[in-house]
Amino acid sequence: MIKVGIIGYGYWGPNLARNFNLIDNCLIKTIVDLKDDRLKLAKKNYPNIHISNDCNSIIDDPEINAVIIATSVSTHYELAKGCLFKNKHVLIEKPMTDSREKCLQLIDLAIKKNLLLMIDHTYLYTGAVRKIKELIDNNEIGNINYFDSVRINMGLFQHDINVIWDLAPHDISILQYLINETPESITATGISHTNNNIENIAYLNLFFNSSKMAHFSVSWSSPVKIRKILIGGDKKMIVYDDLEPTDKVRIYDTGYSINYSKEEEKNIMLVDYRIGDIFMPKLDTTEALKNVSLDFVNCILNNKEPISNWKIGLEIVTILEAAQKSIRNRGKEIKII
Amino acid sequence: MIKVGIIGYGYWGPNLARNFNLIDNCLIKTIVDLKDDRLKLAKKNYPNIHISNDCNSIIDDPEINAVIIATSVSTHYELAKGCLFKNKHVLIEKPMTDSREKCLQLIDLAIKKNLLLMIDHTYLYTGAVRKIKELIDNNEIGNINYFDSVRINMGLFQHDINVIWDLAPHDISILQYLINETPESITATGISHTNNNIENIAYLNLFFNSSKMAHFSVSWSSPVKIRKILIGGDKKMIVYDDLEPTDKVRIYDTGYSINYSKEEEKNIMLVDYRIGDIFMPKLDTTEALKNVSLDFVNCILNNKEPISNWKIGLEIVTILEAAQKSIRNRGKEIKII
Amino acid sequence: MIKVGIIGYGYWGPNLARNFNLIDNCLIKTIVDLKDDRLKLAKKNYPNIHISNDCNSIIDDPEINAVIIATSVSTHYELAKGCLFKNKHVLIEKPMTDSREKCLQLIDLAIKKNLLLMIDHTYLYTGAVRKIKELIDNNEIGNINYFDSVRINMGLFQHDINVIWDLAPHDISILQYLINETPESITATGISHTNNNIENIAYLNLFFNSSKMAHFSVSWSSPVKIRKILIGGDKKMIVYDDLEPTDKVRIYDTGYSINYSKEEEKNIMLVDYRIGDIFMPKLDTTEALKNVSLDFVNCILNNKEPISNWKIGLEIVTILEAAQKSIRNRGKEIKII
Amino acid sequence: MIKVGIIGYGYWGPNLARNFNLIDNCLIKTIVDLKDDRLKLAKKNYPNIHISNDCNSIIDDPEINAVIIATSVSTHYELAKGCLFKNKHVLIEKPMTDSREKCLQLIDLAIKKNLLLMIDHTYLYTGAVRKIKELIDNNEIGNINYFDSVRINMGLFQHDINVIWDLAPHDISILQYLINETPESITATGISHTNNNIENIAYLNLFFNSSKMAHFSVSWSSPVKIRKILIGGDKKMIVYDDLEPTDKVRIYDTGYSINYSKEEEKNIMLVDYRIGDIFMPKLDTTEALKNVSLDFVNCILNNKEPISNWKIGLEIVTILEAAQKSIRNRGKEIKII
Repeated sequence: MIKVGIIGYGYWGPNLARNFNLIDNCLIKTIVDLKDDRLKLAKKNYPNIHISNDCNSIIDDPEINAVIIATSVSTHYELAKGCLFKNKHVLIEKPMTDSREKCLQLIDLAIKKNLLLMIDHTYLYTGAVRKIKELIDNNEIGNINYFDSVRINMGLFQHDINVIWDLAPHDISILQYLINETPESITATGISHTNNNIENIAYLNLFFNSSKMAHFSVSWSSPVKIRKILIGGDKKMIVYDDLEPTDKVRIYDTGYSINYSKEEEKNIMLVDYRIGDIFMPKLDTTEALKNVSLDFVNCILNNKEPISNWKIGLEIVTILEAAQKSIRNRGKEIKII
Repeated sequence: MIKVGIIGYGYWGPNLARNFNLIDNCLIKTIVDLKDDRLKLAKKNYPNIHISNDCNSIIDDPEINAVIIATSVSTHYELAKGCLFKNKHVLIEKPMTDSREKCLQLIDLAIKKNLLLMIDHTYLYTGAVRKIKELIDNNEIGNINYFDSVRINMGLFQHDINVIWDLAPHDISILQYLINETPESITATGISHTNNNIENIAYLNLFFNSSKMAHFSVSWSSPVKIRKILIGGDKKMIVYDDLEPTDKVRIYDTGYSINYSKEEEKNIMLVDYRIGDIFMPKLDTTEALKNVSLDFVNCILNNKEPISNWKIGLEIVTILEAAQKSIRNRGKEIKII
Repeated sequence: MIKVGIIGYGYWGPNLARNFNLIDNCLIKTIVDLKDDRLKLAKKNYPNIHISNDCNSIIDDPEINAVIIATSVSTHYELAKGCLFKNKHVLIEKPMTDSREKCLQLIDLAIKKNLLLMIDHTYLYTGAVRKIKELIDNNEIGNINYFDSVRINMGLFQHDINVIWDLAPHDISILQYLINETPESITATGISHTNNNIENIAYLNLFFNSSKMAHFSVSWSSPVKIRKILIGGDKKMIVYDDLEPTDKVRIYDTGYSINYSKEEEKNIMLVDYRIGDIFMPKLDTTEALKNVSLDFVNCILNNKEPISNWKIGLEIVTILEAAQKSIRNRGKEIKII
Repeated sequence: MIKVGIIGYGYWGPNLARNFNLIDNCLIKTIVDLKDDRLKLAKKNYPNIHISNDCNSIIDDPEINAVIIATSVSTHYELAKGCLFKNKHVLIEKPMTDSREKCLQLIDLAIKKNLLLMIDHTYLYTGAVRKIKELIDNNEIGNINYFDSVRINMGLFQHDINVIWDLAPHDISILQYLINETPESITATGISHTNNNIENIAYLNLFFNSSKMAHFSVSWSSPVKIRKILIGGDKKMIVYDDLEPTDKVRIYDTGYSINYSKEEEKNIMLVDYRIGDIFMPKLDTTEALKNVSLDFVNCILNNKEPISNWKIGLEIVTILEAAQKSIRNRGKEIKII
């Protein structure tokens, strides 16, 4: 039996609690939040769970062996460090921390203590992303030529992080999971419509050693909600629209190939493009967060590595940090070490 | 009666011919194309019009007083110069030429000779763009905070120009028409999946002196066709989806405003966002190219300035040229003089 | 404090429990279901609530003063009669019972005992339907000329009731709430693809004394899910698409009017039709079932009549019964008394 | 060389002229219309074609060997009879005539004189319908269980025919082409919002000897345009949405099958339903009317039977006539002889 503590019962905490509550060999012992109304709600939902406004009632509880951290990004590092130090496995809300350096310290600690350090990049556990991963791994899509993501809506303006740190981790995690290739460099641009210099609209380009490019468009200021990823392979192409109720993934038997021919005494490149059938596979509709919870618990019990492991978590923070640097320099190219 | 010659009967030429053919005080005398099958088609469509594969049969014809140039971009300058030199009014397919310098020479010549030099930025004549222009001019949208355009599809790979020169003129012309403000600087990124270094996917950022930003996403390599522009004002926001059969323009009574408050002894910025009603105005459905044709003929007859004048045409080529420079330098910021 | 018992914890019961659990002056005391796994789930969700597989543990419990019946239709009458007899207020899942006669008996009993008899026609409590009701009551739509509803999907084949009894109550309740006019007669057609003669696809027409008509299309056998209602007024028209995530209600400033004119020596009727602006009002997004729960509790506490009262409930069963008669006679017109 | 005359240059005539004008071994000699402005337009479009306001200038012209009749329905019979009598092949706009009796007379005459009598049911020549036909003929869909069509929009109110005669021929022709089975009986309901008793909204049910049913919903009074056909087979299901720009046909690997099992001492029918992948085949995008024109010309030249032959044309008018009878009797079932 794994005894779990949850720190943070704001937007995402209740979803985590609901899912962990339904796992068989797992018990939520304590929920911590700083706000009374959130604790009151937690008590209403789960009358038998202990509540507290002090995170140490989890960190110092020797009975609790796993902690879920669902607080704001700036607190992740200290909370996770405390938990790992007290020998607790940790599941951290995305992104892992607010700097690559802090990530490396947590990873170091987790490795030394042989504890699970998992990041909740929920999208990796959706039926849609798992299906796309399967298609790419089976070489049905071919070499990935581009990845283009739009994630925009009228959203909560965060006070401590800009829109890239808030929204792009979803899409970068999907990209990294699918292609597993570190970008060579990054450019990012954006604008802040508040006077705190925190961008509410931003664009991010990732350049790779191969002839591949990724682009991300994120915004808190769009009147319409869009969640759309295009993936162009040299065999097939994918459109993943997360707002479609069921048919989220479309595979297009569409592409282009380059030919060369002599015409009118000049060598001319001819591009053949092909527009073909479309296929929409049935997707597993299990709630992604249920899969996250199960992966966390199973990896603890069986000492295995989760899908959303710290390598992906670290890669994402590395990219976000570089993006931050570029955006403050009007899109200057930043190399990834 | 205006006698018109059309040079170029490829993709766009037949549409121009069809519209000019229906204008009352206007007669198409000659159509020129280099390819026999295009000329044959022109003859089938308009048995009474003279056809030729020599552009001089138009340029040197003293009866013809207006010429429409619908050829590839690299030929615009020489053809337009020839026509203006021979005292003919000119309507050029977008973009005006392939360099700012050449544009300036044509403009100079047109002014000296008091001839009309008009660019066919067709979108400025659509019911959708005219309605949006009206809304902005009536201050119903407020200050424009951002402009975000996506124009992607599986498209013909051009051999002489990249995807920015091919597709972005549409969206840049709309932006320039709506806000009439020269950008301060530009960054552009992109990738070529052919070996000729001509980008088939590209992204373009325009920075303005004001707290405004514009972003353009263009691609010849998307399995889906998207034509979507978001315009964020501080009063209202607009979504213009050109693929909607009738309801192309949505006006969102949605926005955000910044407040400041004391909370927990710190000054904290609060953003109120508001999601309200949506309004979709009825649009004039006159074919845009009919309006282009009428504007061209009327401006010749009445010595007036067209909506799609050479100022907008010049601005667009200036931006395209800077984009070209930036894209070859991995998104380096290029100042606009 | 109202103490509530819930009979039936199948598909809808957990939603009812979740909402009633959050109401302040209300406590769920007991949940009854015949199936062990459902009771186990109820216990997991609400560890402090009493569970039982015997409905009498609710009916005979003097502490419980209100009962929610969320069982299959054929059991509604007996359960509700038992509860009313034992002086308990009753909220019954739609439709009220499986015959007009049984409805009349329940109504009679409720009136005699001065108890609340409410039917859970959830749709009447959605932001969308309440907004449409407001528009019609404010005479913005004009006289209703037609009501056309499509509610189809790949759905669970019921064993005791056909698709009309299963799905049409939603749409008929909306119609009755909006126009409050008893139809004069009914025709219904349909087909059963099973050998039990229970229709899985059906169509229903309601004729009114006025020049109004309503049509309902329901199916358990459609590969796509559609939830769309068109309402044609002589001033404006409404399209209510319940599957739209936010913009469910569109008001079209579109219509037609009849003129008469002399043309070519004959009297000819001319229909002017007008296609105008579209307006999509912001809707209240409170969960409808929360409003149902609140209405039930408030009406008990304040001795008031709920929106979804027994009059609407009776009207719907009357229509369903007539539809049943017509469908077995290949669409024979059945008069409504 | 086939010399063609076109009678009627209103809404559809120009489309027919445009397509026949591009066929190689075919020449349009004369266009007839009663209205001067239509003739003026014909002359503008085709300066070399003879125009007239007298249909006899076609019927009596011995050089013309094929006539296209694109006038209002009530005139089809007399015009076609005249043409056939003068030994001309005939292509008639849908529906063939306004009564089964008149159709039989035209068919009789055409057979006697060995002339082609073809009806322009354009939809049979679309890439979408031909693909669906191919799927059904290859037994990929299985037995057809139902056919459900919605064809509604804000449309021109006709003065001589109701909405069923105007719109339903499209969908009935598709049904008849796909399944080739005469319905046993028909019920139809509808309403007229004008005072001429001509229905502007109507619903039509077709019952078949097999366990199959077809339903048609047609309207001139919908604020939204819908063109959607569902076809339910016992293997797969099809959704054909004609308003989709490219992906018009979706094939759902979705269905239901019936099982029987013992449960709780009763025999209970269990329906398994299956929701699977979706496939959207690439469709031929040739303009349907081009295929109509080619079929007409080829069948004349090679003495063959066209896809849209008089058998389908007769079947459709038979159904329309029965629908008319039913609708005037509030949905009374009308047997088809």
